[in-house]
Order: sequence, then C-alpha cells, then structure tokens
Amino acid sequence: MKTTANVLSKVNSADDLKKLSPEELNLLSGEMRELIIKKVNETGGHFGPNLGIVETTIALHYVFNSPVDKIVFDVSHQCYPHKILTGRKEGFINPEDYSKYTGYTAPEESEHDFFKVGHTSTSVSLAVGLTKGRDVLGGKENIIALIGDGSLTGGEALEGLNNAAVLNSNMIIVVNDNDMSIAENQGGIANMLTELRNNNGKVKNNFFEALGFEYFYVNDGHDIQKLIEVFNKVKDTQHPVVVHIFTQKGKGFKPAEEDKEPFHWILPHELDRLNEAPTQSGEDYNSITKDYLLNKVKEDSSVVVMTAATPGVFGFNKEFRNKLGANYVDVGIAEQHAVGMASGIAKAGAKPVLCLMSSFVQRTYDQLSQDLALNNSPATILIYWGGISGADATHLCTFDISLISNIPNIVYLAPATKEEYLKMLDWSVNQKEHPVVIRVPGDLKSAGVSDETDYSVLNKYQMVEKGSEVALIGLGDFSEKAKKVKELLKDKLNISATLINPKFITGVDEEMLSGLRADHKVVVTMEDGELDGGFGEKIARFYGSSDMKVLNYGSFKEFTDKTPMPELNKRYRLTPELIAEDIEKLIK
Amino acid sequence: MKTTANVLSKVNSADDLKKLSPEELNLLSGEMRELIIKKVNETGGHFGPNLGIVETTIALHYVFNSPVDKIVFDVSHQCYPHKILTGRKEGFINPEDYSKYTGYTAPEESEHDFFKVGHTSTSVSLAVGLTKGRDVLGGKENIIALIGDGSLTGGEALEGLNNAAVLNSNMIIVVNDNDMSIAENQGGIANMLTELRNNNGKVKNNFFEALGFEYFYVNDGHDIQKLIEVFNKVKDTQHPVVVHIFTQKGKGFKPAEEDKEPFHWILPHELDRLNEAPTQSGEDYNSITKDYLLNKVKEDSSVVVMTAATPGVFGFNKEFRNKLGANYVDVGIAEQHAVGMASGIAKAGAKPVLCLMSSFVQRTYDQLSQDLALNNSPATILIYWGGISGADATHLCTFDISLISNIPNIVYLAPATKEEYLKMLDWSVNQKEHPVVIRVPGDLKSAGVSDETDYSVLNKYQMVEKGSEVALIGLGDFSEKAKKVKELLKDKLNISATLINPKFITGVDEEMLSGLRADHKVVVTMEDGELDGGFGEKIARFYGSSDMKVLNYGSFKEFTDKTPMPELNKRYRLTPELIAEDIEKLIK
Repeated sequence: MKTTANVLSKVNSADDLKKLSPEELNLLSGEMRELIIKKVNETGGHFGPNLGIVETTIALHYVFNSPVDKIVFDVSHQCYPHKILTGRKEGFINPEDYSKYTGYTAPEESEHDFFKVGHTSTSVSLAVGLTKGRDVLGGKENIIALIGDGSLTGGEALEGLNNAAVLNSNMIIVVNDNDMSIAENQGGIANMLTELRNNNGKVKNNFFEALGFEYFYVNDGHDIQKLIEVFNKVKDTQHPVVVHIFTQKGKGFKPAEEDKEPFHWILPHELDRLNEAPTQSGEDYNSITKDYLLNKVKEDSSVVVMTAATPGVFGFNKEFRNKLGANYVDVGIAEQHAVGMASGIAKAGAKPVLCLMSSFVQRTYDQLSQDLALNNSPATILIYWGGISGADATHLCTFDISLISNIPNIVYLAPATKEEYLKMLDWSVNQKEHPVVIRVPGDLKSAGVSDETDYSVLNKYQMVEKGSEVALIGLGDFSEKAKKVKELLKDKLNISATLINPKFITGVDEEMLSGLRADHKVVVTMEDGELDGGFGEKIARFYGSSDMKVLNYGSFKEFTDKTPMPELNKRYRLTPELIAEDIEKLIK
Repeated sequence: MKTTANVLSKVNSADDLKKLSPEELNLLSGEMRELIIKKVNETGGHFGPNLGIVETTIALHYVFNSPVDKIVFDVSHQCYPHKILTGRKEGFINPEDYSKYTGYTAPEESEHDFFKVGHTSTSVSLAVGLTKGRDVLGGKENIIALIGDGSLTGGEALEGLNNAAVLNSNMIIVVNDNDMSIAENQGGIANMLTELRNNNGKVKNNFFEALGFEYFYVNDGHDIQKLIEVFNKVKDTQHPVVVHIFTQKGKGFKPAEEDKEPFHWILPHELDRLNEAPTQSGEDYNSITKDYLLNKVKEDSSVVVMTAATPGVFGFNKEFRNKLGANYVDVGIAEQHAVGMASGIAKAGAKPVLCLMSSFVQRTYDQLSQDLALNNSPATILIYWGGISGADATHLCTFDISLISNIPNIVYLAPATKEEYLKMLDWSVNQKEHPVVIRVPGDLKSAGVSDETDYSVLNKYQMVEKGSEVALIGLGDFSEKAKKVKELLKDKLNISATLINPKFITGVDEEMLSGLRADHKVVVTMEDGELDGGFGEKIARFYGSSDMKVLNYGSFKEFTDKTPMPELNKRYRLTPELIAEDIEKLIK
C-alpha cells in the first residue's frame, strides 16, 4: 500500500481538491478507500455506507464550495470521506487519532458539518430549513441533501420531499441509491428506484417528477467525472432537483460488495476474522427471543414478527427471516407505520410482535399513543438496547421509559431474568387486553426457576425479600444492582434491606408500597434510563405526602456523547458502593 | 324540508342500502346532507369534510359488505355519513340523541368502526395491518382505507403507502381529493393531485403507479353510480389499488363550497350567524401573538412563522397569512418535517416560530429530540391548547409537558400572564442558545406591569410572595389556581402560604426550593396536564430525601373522552377548595 496518501497528502481542505486532475481524483478515491478500510477495521464503525460514497463526496466537494454551500448528510453514517476531505484526515491516517472524530457529522468538529445527525430520514427537512433560512436572509449558496434509498422511506423524509418539491429556489437532493437499506430496502419506493436503475433513469412514471422535481440520473455513481458533470449542471439551479445516483454499498471490498448487510457496520477487527469459523455465541436475549418466536410461529400461524429496517440488531439474520416466511415483515425505515400496522394486525385478531431499538422507538410517540394505546390493541413491542451506555449522542437509549411509560393504557414491562422475560413475552403474545411493551434486558440472567406470575394482574411488584428500614427497587436489569446494594447494606450497616422487583414500569403497586410505611424509612429506586419522567419519579410522587424518604437513581436529562460508562456511573452515582454510601448518609 | 328521511326511513343498516334504486340513492344523499347540516349547526363539529363524502360513503356501503369488509376512515372526522348508514342515524335525526355518538369512529359504538381515530394520516398503516392480519388468518374480506388529500402528506401515511404498494393481496386505498387540507393543501403531492384532476387521471408521471399501485380516477366523486362502478371494479382485487376520487368539500352548502377553510369545523349555530357582522373579539393569546409576529416580521425579515396545516387554531386567517407573505410557511400535515425545517432555519441564522397544537406535537418526539434539541437549534415553538379539557379522547392536550419536558436541552416555558408570555416570546425569538418551547396559556391574564425577567438565566422561578409553612407552585395558567388556594389557606387556616410562579417547566430551581426547607412543611405543585412524567414529579424527586412533604396536582394518566371539566376537576381534586382541603389534612 505504498501509494497511500500520495494524492491525499496534497489535500488538506476541500479547496485543494479543486486543483487535482481527473486522474488524481481517481487515485485519491482509492487512497481514501484504503484508509477507511484500515481504520474501520481497527475501530469498528459504518463500513459499507462509507465505501459506497467516496466518489460522490469527492465530486460534491469538487463542484460545490463548502461550507458556503451546505451539504446535509442523512444519518451521516456515510460522512467519513467528507471528514477526510474537510480537514480531518489525520483521524483516518494516524491510529493515535482514530478516536478523535465521531462517526457522524458534528458541528463542533468542523464548519463543514451543520447538524449532529444519527437518526435517518431527516436531511431533506433540515435542508429545506437551511434553504428557507437562506432565502429570507438573501443568501445565494447551494443547499444539498444527501440521502440514501433506505432513508427515503422514513416519514420525515417523505414529508420533506413533499415540501422541498415546491420550493421556488435552489435545493439539490442527491439520492444515493445502493439498492439497500441496512438490510434489503422495502416497499414501493425501493421498486420504483429499481425500475429507474434498470432503465437508466427513464421510466413511464417518474416518482420524483410526479412530485415536481427536476430529475437527473447517474448510472455509475463511482465515476467521478460523470458525477462532477451532473453536479455542475445542477449547481446554482433555482428550483428543486433530484440527482439520483446508483452506487455500490461496500465498493472496493469484495466481501462487502457481495454480501452487503453484514458489512453495513462492523466490529473492531471484524475484517481480520473473515476467514475464521463463526464463533458459536452462547445463549443471550437475542437467541432466546428467536427460539421463542420460531416455535410460536410454528404452533400459531397468526403470529407476525415485525422489524423496521434493523433486523440485525435482534440477530434476525437471513436464515431466521426465511424460516419465518410470511410471518415476518420488515417495513423498512418506517417506525411510525410499523406501530400503526401492528395495531391493525392486532385488531384483525392476529398477533404482532414488533422489535425496535430504544433509540428508534422515539419516532413513534403519537403512533404508540393514538394508533395503539387509545385503541387498546393487543400488540407486543420489544424494546432492545434500552439503558445507559457509552453510545454516541445520536443513539442514546436512555429515553424510552420516559417516552413510553407516561402514555395511558400501555403496559410496559421490565423483566429481570430470562424466565420472567419469556413468561412476559408469552403472556403478551397470547393476551387480548392490552398493548404491551417489554424492555429486553442486556445481560442474560437466569433465575434458575420458571416464572409462574400471572401478568394479567397489572402493577403487582414482586417482593423478592422482605426486610426493613430500607427498600431497594431495582427495575429490570438494575435488579442486580439492587441485590448488590442489599449486600453492602448488610455488610456495612447490618441492615436487612427489602428487595423488590417491580416488573411493571407503567404502574405503582400501591398496596405493596403502602405496606412499606410500617417499617421502612427509605425507598431507593434504580432504573437504567433517564430519571426525568421515569419510573422513580412515580415512586417519589407516591410517597410525596408521607414520611418515607425516596432516593432515585438513573441518568440525568442530558445527551452524553461516547462518555465511558465508568464516568457515567460516577456522575450518576450508579455503583452499588455509591448508592449504599448515599443511603448510609440519609439514615444516619 | 318535507322530504327528509323519506328514503332514510328505509335504511336501518348498510344492508338496506343495497335494496335501493339509483334514484333512491340520490335522494338519500340529499336527505343525509340535510341531516348533517342541521345537526352540525346545532352541535358544532366537522362540517365540510362530511358534506363532501356523502356519496362516497353510500357507494362504499352499497358495494362492500361492512363489517366483514372493513373501511378505515382517516382522521375519521368525515364519518358522519358512515354513522348514519350503520345504525346510528337517530344521532343525526333526533336532537335529543345528538350527543349520543362521538364525532369520530368509535369501536364501542358499532361493529362497523374498527379504530378510534382523530389524528390524521394513520389509515393506510392501520389498514395494512388489517390486511396482514387477514392474510395470516386466511380471510378473504376487502380492506379499504379512505384518506383525504390533506392527510396524504403526513409521514405515517407515506410510510404506509410505501408498504401497502407491495402487498400481494387485496387492499383498496380511496383517496378523497377535495383539493384542501384544513387550509390549502401544500406541496408536491397537492400539485401532483391537481395535475391528475386537471387531466382526468391521465398524466405523464403517475405518482401512485410509480409506487406500484393500480390506479383509478373518478372525476365526479358525487356521482354515486360512477363510484359504485369503480368500487365494483376493485372489489376483491388481489393487489393494492388506489381509487382517486374528486369531491367537493362542503358540497351542498353554498358558503362552504365557496370558502372551504372556515367551514372545515364549525361552532354551534355558526350557520345561523353567517349574515351577522363578525363580532369583534377582544384581546386573547391568539391576537397578541399575531400582533407580535406581524410587528416582528416587519422589523426583522429573517423571522419565519410556521404552521402544520392548522393555521385556524392560532387565528392565522388568510389576511394574516398574506400579510406575512414569504415569512409564513404552512408545511401541511407534516409536523415532523416542520420541526426539522425549523431546526434548519435556525441553523441558517434565521428565526423560526413554529405554532403547533399540543395534541399534534405528539407526532414530533424524535424530531424535537434529534433534529432540534441535540443540535441546540434556537427555534421557537409555541404550543397551543395544552391543558386538561373535556375534549374528545383523540384530541387530548394533556401530554405535552410529559412529552417535551424530559428531552434534554429544550427550554420549555409556562407563562402565567400576557406580559410574561410576550417577554418570553421576544427573548426566545432573538436568542441563539436554546431550542425554546412556550406553552401558550388559555385565558388571558394581565399582570398590569411589564415583565423584566431575563429568561437567559434558566430555571429561575419567581417568588411571587414569600410566606411560610406551605408553598404553592402553580405552573402556567394554574398560577391562578395557586393564588386561590393561598386565599383559602389564609381564610381557613390563617396560613400565609408562599406563592411561586415557576415559569420553567424543564428545570428545578434548586436554590429556591432548598431555601423553602427552613420554614416550610409542604410544597404543592399544580400543573395543567398529566402528572406522570410531568413537572410536579420533578419537584417530588427533588424533595425525596428531605422531610418536605409534596403534593402534586394534575391529571391522571388516562384517555378521557368528552368528560366534562367539573367531573375531571373532582376526579383529579383540582379545585382550589379540594386542594386546600388536602393541604389541611396533611398539615394538621
């Protein structure tokens, strides 16, 4: 790899790009691709999307004048080439700088980044806003939204397209069509794009022209000169245009070109292990969920397993999806529709099980409220990854309790063990009374005995161990933390604390909590999520008019950004030791 | 009106309809229209949408076999003809039964209603769910979604269309195109529909065909026989179809045909007052907001006033909109896009002011979080109608505090008086630090003196009157309630309670609240919204580890449905007398 950075060494800003010859631009794309492969293999991160967009990014920066002209990256998980070209190449060249820049656009890093973005389908709306702002301020710059075919199916993107189409001024939407969402792209839009690709952009019914856009098609989205040509054509246009480019996700790394889904995002050193036999991973919540669903579908063909574009998060690989057959639906990036559809399936008398990541359930508040809860539709929703983590600010999973648990009628459950989880899941799938959401825990714990709880009796907490003076309520996977605090209190203060597993996030077990008043001074809640609007505050309110003291543990209302867990545990006083310390101070 | 109910008297169910001659069907439509005009004039309600859909509803029930075949009404504010034909006509004939049925589809009323619906753009997703449920259960019935052109611009509807297009089974989407949203319809979709109408359904680029639907056009959506013909054609089809029908909103009532917007929804007896001179309404929050915005736009052309299809809610009539000119944007039913766009406008350096109803801000959680809050975009959002009311279950406005106030970075303000409101609004529009949401109060109260607060100092509550023993914190328009409780405590118990106006919903004034510990036993919060996840719980949590007792007042986590306010005030103990009673019990 001796050529690496030969051309790139001349490129310290997007301006430098404009001095390069066509041949140098091609060499540059190869060098950038090498850097991306090497770096992402070291650090993990989005792989296929970045390899696919190298030439487009070069052409965009060659033609447009960033940051005066403004490029908005949808999801922005394809912004690595952009970062390389806008003064941040050392973060890709030098291993010691690998963690210097985030995996998403970040205005704090560069004037070439306009928004912190990590959820899909927002770029068109954000760009329409930049356009309107430019127009009322009298600016003349180009506004460009770069959006993938997968992101195009999200409601906000479609709402944005509808409004972008009638702007009487410059706005350029680049549709980066690689024929993939994270998994296969879904729906009429995917078919429409396929037809355009198959016909070199010329079809009977052009979707974009129907909406009012001028439309351009580039068949080879890796041909820099062709891209430059079309971008030059649309530059400074005074009406909204769509430039539809066909690119290859994973371009330049053969295994990723051939099997796109597993290379969308990779773990550190995943490329080094390609030839190793896949390690047999042990039992976890993904595997037991899959086993349950497969068996359930076999015995009851009315069960419909649903995802919204992220089957990989749940371990739903192609084999599993194929086994489910017609009992599996991936709606694509369309979380709102997924919840509405789940409600419809339930009302038809069938049994939907919709799997969503905590961060993405945020798109569905109104659907949870109106389509689902108001109709008491007996759908099951599984929320994955909910909890405090060192995640990127755009993908935090700390808000789902606050989001979901304050909506009437929804039963939101937090299992602490595998047995509870399976019992809750089975109860939920088979019942016809409530919309049920279950927060799938992280680490698998087994209670060793099966759970015989009747979950149709709502809001009954489990008294794990009755003690006195202090009651510890650990929600879901924080029940382990509560156990450890109990041990510390015993060791340090000789207190036999009461241990409660609440199971129900959405309700207060008034009978049990009232009972604690007799011989308890302090109730401590621990939840794996934001305190504001969360579970603990309901307990604090319940005891507000009594002498009971209440301590609530969880995360603060803030966007953390790759903040390491030890730091968060300290900040939020979430270790058993710190919690025991606080309790000691309070009762002394 | 002697003909009234001549034909209708023979129609007690949808089945009876099938026995009528074409002439009788036409007479029936006239009779139904008369009933709707008379009833809605008495009770108030949705007017134009129902007059426009009479013939379509007759034709649907003539051709299809409800409730085996299932019709899902989008928003369902056009379901009056459907109710008349499905066993509920007495609710339109007999004045004493006028309030017997809700203004929306309601499964508890009839087996012909499948969902409780009041928010737009959900019908396609719900119907896709019914379709999938039917298919896995082996059913054969027709599934029909009836959706208006206005609703079609909402993200969930577009996500739904994308997925409906690839169903390999029966699904019929009837697009009721009356060339109107609540106000004018907006965007590329509206233009696309106009072109279809202008060309009798034949255009170069057919949007629906591009997505994969079979497409039918009916130029006269009031010609029952033509509608019957097309519905017969698509009945039992085994692939997704779109039937695009052109109807006239307000059909049969001339003033509503000529000026559609004011007749979308009318107040009781509004039709009787058509020839009266418009009453000069006094100053209210609508009028002072409009005055402020007009003046602001005059002095600063970077201010952009935004709505999402409901300008009438804010009193933004055509005259006002025209005055704002290019500084006004109605994005149509596209709340997610509106928030994203507002963030973009703010990032461009201009000043967006987005007006939304509390109930509809529910569609924007993720946009508030990701597009706006994470980016700290200094946009201003005004939330109207937030508060406990006797509204329909589908339009409750009690959840916005819980929804918005637990998102990091957003400053959510609750003014108690006109002066505070205007000061907050002006501060928000001019500042560049925070996304700011302001909860526009209901009744206008004047403090009599201008507000000089510097709102850039966050989370500083106002100590209105320092007392002792009991502190009363009334949020926003509940500050009046707090004042009354204070008077009662003085009269009944000779307690000089402390009165606090918190102003900031999103933060706790720890300094002020800590200071209360010295000479207060009880802190009472009052908020006009849901307790769960709300403002009061944050105060309860703050005092959790102290001896301070806390009482929280607000509404329960429940969907109420046209429940009268006196009943709710009793249920939630929200009158000053009940609150004072509780306080007395607690401190005695």
